[in-house]
Amino acid sequence: MASTPRIISLLTDFGTQDGFVGILKGVILGINPSVSIVDLSHEVQPQDILMGALILRSAIAFFPPGTIHVAVVDPGVGSTRRPIIVETATALLVGPDNGLLSVAAPPESVQRVIYLTKSRYFLPHVSHTFHGRDIFAPVAAHLSRGVFPEDFGPVGTTMERLALPVVAHTPHQITGSVIALDRFGNIVTNITAADLLPFPMESLSVSIGPVQIHGLASTYASVPVGAVTALLNSWGMLEIAVRNGSAAQQLGVPRGSAVVITDQ
Amino acid sequence: MASTPRIISLLTDFGTQDGFVGILKGVILGINPSVSIVDLSHEVQPQDILMGALILRSAIAFFPPGTIHVAVVDPGVGSTRRPIIVETATALLVGPDNGLLSVAAPPESVQRVIYLTKSRYFLPHVSHTFHGRDIFAPVAAHLSRGVFPEDFGPVGTTMERLALPVVAHTPHQITGSVIALDRFGNIVTNITAADLLPFPMESLSVSIGPVQIHGLASTYASVPVGAVTALLNSWGMLEIAVRNGSAAQQLGVPRGSAVVITDQ
Amino acid sequence: MASTPRIISLLTDFGTQDGFVGILKGVILGINPSVSIVDLSHEVQPQDILMGALILRSAIAFFPPGTIHVAVVDPGVGSTRRPIIVETATALLVGPDNGLLSVAAPPESVQRVIYLTKSRYFLPHVSHTFHGRDIFAPVAAHLSRGVFPEDFGPVGTTMERLALPVVAHTPHQITGSVIALDRFGNIVTNITAADLLPFPMESLSVSIGPVQIHGLASTYASVPVGAVTALLNSWGMLEIAVRNGSAAQQLGVPRGSAVVITDQ
Repeated sequence: MASTPRIISLLTDFGTQDGFVGILKGVILGINPSVSIVDLSHEVQPQDILMGALILRSAIAFFPPGTIHVAVVDPGVGSTRRPIIVETATALLVGPDNGLLSVAAPPESVQRVIYLTKSRYFLPHVSHTFHGRDIFAPVAAHLSRGVFPEDFGPVGTTMERLALPVVAHTPHQITGSVIALDRFGNIVTNITAADLLPFPMESLSVSIGPVQIHGLASTYASVPVGAVTALLNSWGMLEIAVRNGSAAQQLGVPRGSAVVITDQ
Repeated sequence: MASTPRIISLLTDFGTQDGFVGILKGVILGINPSVSIVDLSHEVQPQDILMGALILRSAIAFFPPGTIHVAVVDPGVGSTRRPIIVETATALLVGPDNGLLSVAAPPESVQRVIYLTKSRYFLPHVSHTFHGRDIFAPVAAHLSRGVFPEDFGPVGTTMERLALPVVAHTPHQITGSVIALDRFGNIVTNITAADLLPFPMESLSVSIGPVQIHGLASTYASVPVGAVTALLNSWGMLEIAVRNGSAAQQLGVPRGSAVVITDQ
Repeated sequence: MASTPRIISLLTDFGTQDGFVGILKGVILGINPSVSIVDLSHEVQPQDILMGALILRSAIAFFPPGTIHVAVVDPGVGSTRRPIIVETATALLVGPDNGLLSVAAPPESVQRVIYLTKSRYFLPHVSHTFHGRDIFAPVAAHLSRGVFPEDFGPVGTTMERLALPVVAHTPHQITGSVIALDRFGNIVTNITAADLLPFPMESLSVSIGPVQIHGLASTYASVPVGAVTALLNSWGMLEIAVRNGSAAQQLGVPRGSAVVITDQ
């Protein structure tokens, strides 16, 4: 794993209004003044662990090896849920053991899970309500200075895992669901390029909410302005979009809605 | 005071849409390319000096000694209000002399106040409407390069101070007020842990808007989902919260609302 | 052009919720770990090329020479629109050739336009939907490491240009239009200080929506709270403001509305 200079990414549901994120950075830079800090998102809806987990998964492949990703969506702060480091071949994930880190670290990629117990790496006073500041930020900063993961506490391999919505396959049909609505109003599903392999790209049919779409487009710009289209997005996921408009608004399908693919 | 590498934090009411914050950073990096810049918040409501002052106070203890904090919530820009540096034992605060810096720098902590008059440290053209760009950013950048505070203008000790809402004490009751609603909908009051010392934690009563809460919780997670609870938050202030929900929305109490503590 | 340390600024319509901006930064830091990255804005309304172009123009003069500005407002991603570098005397602009870069780079300032074709400077897999990540971020990062602009593809001088709304002049009157509403609700017009030279500052008349304003103010603070005022803003543009309030809200004039100046 590359050792210098280190990057720490931050993903939280703190928003950017209250100064919480700035405080994390103050704590980190107080411990390691030369680390680079990158904001992944702080607009995860409060306590929406699944959304945080999906954003983290979408991003980590694009960071250099050795990046430390801190994620804090933590409704159980102050309870018995454990603070952990998850070590994979290419990254270190730091956050609460509530499933948030699990989607970005599928079982086969996890080398070690470290349960954070060594309070000398925390802030001197650990509150019951803000472990981002008191535990996760200082631990990430010490990691970025070269402290070994195993120095932070006992080592294991297990962690809480989120149950993601699954794609159901039958001979001529697959059924997935809407997992995210992005800033552009694009509707992101859990159906992947691999799921679609048995289907003819030009003639498959996508049913979602009130509409049925025939065939996949290759780009947003390949359909008329205002048209509803389906395509494989930059994550390799099936996405429903409206050219220069908002599919989320136009179709009114909330997260969790069904998406059905048939071969005609 | 630590001298290298320096951190400059930024707190404004500029929002993040219009490019104003990016411009501050361009100005700073043009003067000191190696400084680390941290955003504290740019979502202070326009002209809300009190909110800016409270966020600044909540944050500065978590930055390393020597950090330079630039704060710009400046409805009087272009008038006679003075631009200042406030020097404390651990930090340098830069901004307008309108009370914004005063809550983070209580009188006993202030070593010097410098009134910014040396225009050689400003941008060549100083507008009447954007001193963040033309005065505060370049002054902070020069400070971060080691220019002494006293080089920026005459030195004094006085500054404008905000009158914060006070907590009223009677033998069996204290009355404070709501000073902030955070991103999670938590209701932050001006009542501190010290104010509550005379009261029995388990049996005190908190009255706010339509509800009365008995006893303090220790964590958000220690009450049922949806329950209204009172606790000491990560700033050591009394806070009213709804587990996994928004107390602000549920109770409908705006900033300034009364909060009454009694011992039964 | 200064060569080290480099700054890369980012301007997009990606918002800050979905992690897209963090991914750009991961890609950049993977190629050049020591570059400084500055966010200009990510809150451009989706596909609003004109707004992005105006923000870019307002900001670039305040960055040090040699800064690389990446701008991505790209409704035509995946179509035939070209990815380009625009080289001026003081900056390098990177983005889609759809007019977005043109307002910050008027014809007389453009030294060269490079059409990006050398895929060895792109990510290995270029998607049809996210060229910010796959082309513009890696190209900017390689530029920041010293790769010459001409190494990225064929060199020319032409690019798509936006048609900006023009100011119409008659002997005793000029007519401009609203080009932006900023975070404070200030109404920014396309009328410049130069346009106003023939008019007496104290007695000219500004008609916009339901109001007529007499004379220009010099600062926001020089009129009573709540009063509508006209002044030259920090960009040197005529602006209509309400002291400590929102002119946009109070006057209800959308972008594109007419603003008429007469000499009495």
